[in-house]
Amino acid sequence: MNLSGGCGTFCLHPALERLFLGTKTPPPQATIRRLSIYLRCLNSLDDEGITVISSRELAERLDLNPAQVRKDLAHFGDFGKRGVGYTVAKLRDHLIKILGLQQKRLVGIVGAGGRLGHALALYKGFEKRNFKVMALFDKDPHVINQVYGEAGPIHHVSELPRLVKELSLEILVLCVPAEALAEVFDYVRLSGAKAVLNFAPVKLASTDGVTVHNVDLALELESLSYHLAAREAGRP
Amino acid sequence: MNLSGGCGTFCLHPALERLFLGTKTPPPQATIRRLSIYLRCLNSLDDEGITVISSRELAERLDLNPAQVRKDLAHFGDFGKRGVGYTVAKLRDHLIKILGLQQKRLVGIVGAGGRLGHALALYKGFEKRNFKVMALFDKDPHVINQVYGEAGPIHHVSELPRLVKELSLEILVLCVPAEALAEVFDYVRLSGAKAVLNFAPVKLASTDGVTVHNVDLALELESLSYHLAAREAGRP
Repeated sequence: MNLSGGCGTFCLHPALERLFLGTKTPPPQATIRRLSIYLRCLNSLDDEGITVISSRELAERLDLNPAQVRKDLAHFGDFGKRGVGYTVAKLRDHLIKILGLQQKRLVGIVGAGGRLGHALALYKGFEKRNFKVMALFDKDPHVINQVYGEAGPIHHVSELPRLVKELSLEILVLCVPAEALAEVFDYVRLSGAKAVLNFAPVKLASTDGVTVHNVDLALELESLSYHLAAREAGRP
Repeated sequence: MNLSGGCGTFCLHPALERLFLGTKTPPPQATIRRLSIYLRCLNSLDDEGITVISSRELAERLDLNPAQVRKDLAHFGDFGKRGVGYTVAKLRDHLIKILGLQQKRLVGIVGAGGRLGHALALYKGFEKRNFKVMALFDKDPHVINQVYGEAGPIHHVSELPRLVKELSLEILVLCVPAEALAEVFDYVRLSGAKAVLNFAPVKLASTDGVTVHNVDLALELESLSYHLAAREAGRP
């Protein structure tokens, strides 16, 4: 909530904001992304046997501003004790619940016959985060029925509506060429899947029924380019 | 800069902050990421023939808070006219300079013989953002000298130091297994490359010489899981 008119950088504490507005404002996407990062950090703190951590220490470990950490977490409740900090195990369990990671989330990969789809079908990083790739889909008759990893044979994309329901897939990862995206998204909407991660180099908009996140791998390179330019210009 | 002691959500306008501190604080990573998103938006505004846009309109198009837009851009100068807005072409050109995208950035891919590396070697999204994949590297003797796309044959990773200098590669994209990461990063540091994008499911830390960004594809799934959990709990 912006109280400053012009420059607009004075913001209310989210809790106060709710008090004033009487409404819960959804937390910004960047905050949601950081929840995963806090969770990873809390897991390693727990491994190190650390049971309590201050927002300052947590911020230092993550190269963030302590105020940012407190503000992020305040979106979801009153976790920390002033002057003491956060109980690692308690905060970790809260974040797992908030992120909905207490249960396995079942994933389907569409475009699994392509290189990126094939790579993601076998990506080790998903399962250890409680995401299970359960089904693979493609349009190319040459790859249908091929088996990559444990997710079984590749099904034709027209099977999405049936298999999303049968296997209760919640998240579909789209690795299809730009020109195939519209047709595939029609199948996705029919299927009733609620979340989509889109790797196609064309943006997809969320609908009422489907939350879409677009992954733009060039974005990562652009923020590296920023740092290269900053070095060149002697900026911090 | 946090002025509030406890809750820490009142922050100074970055320009004032510099005034008070006499130092330039580097902008947060999330702000740098958003610069790319502003740039994409300004490009499409330009295509639509829109020459001036307010922070509010810009924020609406990007589903952001106008205060956030003003704060982000204020890190880099005083671009907007109060009550008028931003000149699209001027702001776009500023952002291109800030992001260092006025020049082609040359990229090498390490682990190009793997599925993900192979996919990235041919990823269409890079070149249209002014990143050019110039060289491919791997350790596996079976893939050395294979040719993927225009980047020429795959070189042995031990060639990194020579070829980074010869081809003036600035960014290395690492798609190697976790167990190969340490050895590969030694070659990277020898090579003098200044920026690394790491896709391995193990985090790499930046060094004085090398800025590292770690891509964690599971993070994208976790923020989707957040939205699934929010639906389940009836949260906004």
